[in-house]
Amino acid sequence: MTDIETRLQALETRLKALEDETAILRLIACYGPAVDSCDRDAVGALWSENGGYDFGGPPLAGRQAVGGLVDLDTHRAYVAAGSGHVLSLPVVTVKGNRATAINYSRVYVKHGDHWRVARMSANHWDLTREDDGQWRVKTRTNRLLDGSEEARAVLSGGLDR
Amino acid sequence: MTDIETRLQALETRLKALEDETAILRLIACYGPAVDSCDRDAVGALWSENGGYDFGGPPLAGRQAVGGLVDLDTHRAYVAAGSGHVLSLPVVTVKGNRATAINYSRVYVKHGDHWRVARMSANHWDLTREDDGQWRVKTRTNRLLDGSEEARAVLSGGLDR
Amino acid sequence: MTDIETRLQALETRLKALEDETAILRLIACYGPAVDSCDRDAVGALWSENGGYDFGGPPLAGRQAVGGLVDLDTHRAYVAAGSGHVLSLPVVTVKGNRATAINYSRVYVKHGDHWRVARMSANHWDLTREDDGQWRVKTRTNRLLDGSEEARAVLSGGLDR
Repeated sequence: MTDIETRLQALETRLKALEDETAILRLIACYGPAVDSCDRDAVGALWSENGGYDFGGPPLAGRQAVGGLVDLDTHRAYVAAGSGHVLSLPVVTVKGNRATAINYSRVYVKHGDHWRVARMSANHWDLTREDDGQWRVKTRTNRLLDGSEEARAVLSGGLDR
Repeated sequence: MTDIETRLQALETRLKALEDETAILRLIACYGPAVDSCDRDAVGALWSENGGYDFGGPPLAGRQAVGGLVDLDTHRAYVAAGSGHVLSLPVVTVKGNRATAINYSRVYVKHGDHWRVARMSANHWDLTREDDGQWRVKTRTNRLLDGSEEARAVLSGGLDR
Repeated sequence: MTDIETRLQALETRLKALEDETAILRLIACYGPAVDSCDRDAVGALWSENGGYDFGGPPLAGRQAVGGLVDLDTHRAYVAAGSGHVLSLPVVTVKGNRATAINYSRVYVKHGDHWRVARMSANHWDLTREDDGQWRVKTRTNRLLDGSEEARAVLSGGLDR
């Protein structure tokens, strides 16, 4: 193997790692706009066919169910009042075709002349690169930061690279 | 064309795409510090000479006018009370020398012993790479997330790559 | 030097710049999960052995002291009530083995049925790439955005590339 071959391979590997991390940031940044515009398909498209979303109650199982969260009464009430689901800059760790990310999500809802944070949660994302090369969510776990140990465990679980 | 030439070109193209996306994240991240420190020139420098900013009222047209927003009475009152204009991680889509980004912006203003969100908006950014190679804002559209269909349309408009 | 050599070197330099910026985003994104899960070691690991954190009172000097902030009474009270330390997308400027970043931090604390922003600050990070190749915090300066000139100066200090 020539020196040029070695350097090309190293560049390709390192570039792929950055592309993966950037793609995952973008995927997570899409979640808010998708749910706040009540776009069932755009939400579902972020998840694997068999992916799930566990936000404390009975988990939503499968892409259809996850996309369907835009029709939940609570969600509709947030959106009607004026809502923003904001996802913070995540800590992303890629290992081959799997990745994890942890971050904070906040649901801001209009309340009189200002907006209040109605939900503030810790999130753990398990992601997978699928056969078409796209990263999608396998499971997302969301726990309210209400002082419980469970929410803190969600955060600490994603810190090791 | 040799195999090495093909691989070099592919690397150059892919790297440029990541550099563009990273430069746009940085551009958007500069907005808050520029307005919260009332730096007219730093705000203006983010926009194209003929760029515009439409935040609901009569749009600000041209870099000078956009930079001048730091002198608006509302803005001065926010800054005097203690303000932070925070822009969320955007969904960036680059196509050649043009790009779009969507994200959330929040204006936090000190209110007694805490900070309140005085504005929570959906943003659509149209960006252009100018002759000097720098990305700048052509138009930014900002709509309060107050339950109106218009704000939701701003978010859904930026989801397709 | 052949054309291929020139192009390989250019790619390696540009890729390294992006890797640095991405590593610094990740470092900053780790702060919140580390403090909200009261993980002293995870907080300390983000700082240089002799790094410091100045958030208005007497600065914390050295990695041990910085990690020890998770035991401060104020911090323990935030975490017990339910807290999220959220760091915004930073403006990162890398120069060789040193870098600066500026961004906003917010401490959300549960208050009845919603979360309030108990601290909203401007941050300036001085970072260094250490001998093991890892970026760590040399000093972090944090000032409440309470209308004071000092906090605004923190923001404006990081705008020039």
